[in-house]
Amino acid sequence: MKAVINGTPEDIRAVWFEGREVRMMDQRRLPHEIVIVNFKEYEEVAASIADMTIRGAPSIGAAAAYGMCLAALNGKDVDKAARIIKASRPTANDLFYAVDHMLRELEKGADPIAAADDYADMIVDKCKKIGEYGNSLIKDGDVIMTHCNAGALATVDVGTALAPIRKAWSSGKNIFVYVSETRPRLQGMQLTAWELSQEGIPHSIIADGASGHFMKKGVDIIITGADRIVANGDFANKIGTYEKAVIAKELGIPFYVAAPVSTFDLGTECGDRIVIEERPEEEVTFMNGVRIAPAGSKALNPSFDVTPSRYVTGFITENGILRPDEVRRMVTR
Amino acid sequence: MKAVINGTPEDIRAVWFEGREVRMMDQRRLPHEIVIVNFKEYEEVAASIADMTIRGAPSIGAAAAYGMCLAALNGKDVDKAARIIKASRPTANDLFYAVDHMLRELEKGADPIAAADDYADMIVDKCKKIGEYGNSLIKDGDVIMTHCNAGALATVDVGTALAPIRKAWSSGKNIFVYVSETRPRLQGMQLTAWELSQEGIPHSIIADGASGHFMKKGVDIIITGADRIVANGDFANKIGTYEKAVIAKELGIPFYVAAPVSTFDLGTECGDRIVIEERPEEEVTFMNGVRIAPAGSKALNPSFDVTPSRYVTGFITENGILRPDEVRRMVTR
Repeated sequence: MKAVINGTPEDIRAVWFEGREVRMMDQRRLPHEIVIVNFKEYEEVAASIADMTIRGAPSIGAAAAYGMCLAALNGKDVDKAARIIKASRPTANDLFYAVDHMLRELEKGADPIAAADDYADMIVDKCKKIGEYGNSLIKDGDVIMTHCNAGALATVDVGTALAPIRKAWSSGKNIFVYVSETRPRLQGMQLTAWELSQEGIPHSIIADGASGHFMKKGVDIIITGADRIVANGDFANKIGTYEKAVIAKELGIPFYVAAPVSTFDLGTECGDRIVIEERPEEEVTFMNGVRIAPAGSKALNPSFDVTPSRYVTGFITENGILRPDEVRRMVTR
Repeated sequence: MKAVINGTPEDIRAVWFEGREVRMMDQRRLPHEIVIVNFKEYEEVAASIADMTIRGAPSIGAAAAYGMCLAALNGKDVDKAARIIKASRPTANDLFYAVDHMLRELEKGADPIAAADDYADMIVDKCKKIGEYGNSLIKDGDVIMTHCNAGALATVDVGTALAPIRKAWSSGKNIFVYVSETRPRLQGMQLTAWELSQEGIPHSIIADGASGHFMKKGVDIIITGADRIVANGDFANKIGTYEKAVIAKELGIPFYVAAPVSTFDLGTECGDRIVIEERPEEEVTFMNGVRIAPAGSKALNPSFDVTPSRYVTGFITENGILRPDEVRRMVTR
């Protein structure tokens, strides 16, 4: 992705390996400053996933792979490392997928750095393919809506939901993107809008509650990411996704979910079985370290919601676009 | 409403007249401190409406009536005062209703203070009746959802959407209220949750985007206020209302709108004709005076959305509960 660092536009990934360290952009500091943090121990990488220094299912997967790489390089018990890294967050399937992938590669005697780099490169290649397939759904002049950040920051580079948007823009289509701010952590406002502004893609931030209003005014296509897609086509994504999907169906707006195959969890039959992470209420009741809620009030803060498959027009994957009823068949072959 | 002022629980209104001044709670300072501001000139009252020191359609109406009272007491041109006060905000019907009411009363030679006090008392009486009717819809054990602040702060006292909730609680029903925070200005988090906490009514703040998730988990009834209800039963209310109404219909949750007859505008046929106020983008991109959005990104900030009548179960008024198709008939007789 493009990022202006110390006045110079650079190409940068969300996470990478360099000098026997895992390096990543601290996404909690964006959009105000670009801070690169580096970790020498896998426990630090697990903590960086838990505290959301890095977030987004595929980036979490890559960070986990690099964490396993550190464990192997440092001669640690990789099975224990796998357990600790897997415990860092509960919802994203990519986390478990990446750790299991690294365990298999390490067992086969693979070089830890090459195996983790290959895993990250594989994600980026998949995102590029998602961009190609998704771009076929976008017409010149389209108004697009997305939610949260399913951009390069969430996927090492390029993005899932933002991949078709980047591709449409770079291929000369005139597009406009509504970015819902995504309370409580504002990943839409602070990450997606930041990525779009770095590339010069026309966009506007809106409050989450304004999504329906702007859909009614005119949105041609909605594209979100996903944290987990299960066998019947239900999927979990950032809280607020379900509402957009229901309203899109009501208004006849196509609703697409962009995600690599690693986000699909065919071992789970339906969305009711997905564990929804409950995050601390302070994410809602504090802003910039200042309490914004009344002293006597508590908040509930589920990080994700589950959208039933009947609201999904299609899943944009690196293998093509699937209808919800094709999920089980396509991924297992 | 109850409010603890300097450690003492007091009964207070959102706006009142005392010592030849209009006094009101500065709602922008809540929930952190209770600040009473006072105005000697109607222009200051108009400004207090425009800058949202006072907000909520019926409270705006009462403030406007007191502003007209000041104009009359100070020997100002009341027609000019009417124009200036009416221009303070564009969407709430109560503003125009209250100003026209005061013009008629002043023309009849009414005492300005008594006329404005009567107007404010009338609102409170209507709210009490709304509370009685609305309470009949709430069962012991119900989980209720509301949005924004349609409480005592918005309606001089008691509230519209909060009137049935207050009545249900004071009559001994065990209830729980989901309060969506209502970005960008957080009236749900900062005003509704504050009112509920002052009365000890069990509640939880949620991000706006979490409304659908919690509706799916189980909500028995949704009650919101309205800023304008038009002849065909469409209504304007705080941005984010439309989404809740659509999802409520999808899930079979009763969706009620509580508002006095003064909020009904039968001169407007359908919701498409309602002017939607666009407020400054800084309400979205700044928080507590600190920019939270990327430097290169703009925001759109419509203050209201319009919900079509087909999503409304009923309107709770001081004259009873109306189906949307009864709006035209009931209000004109």
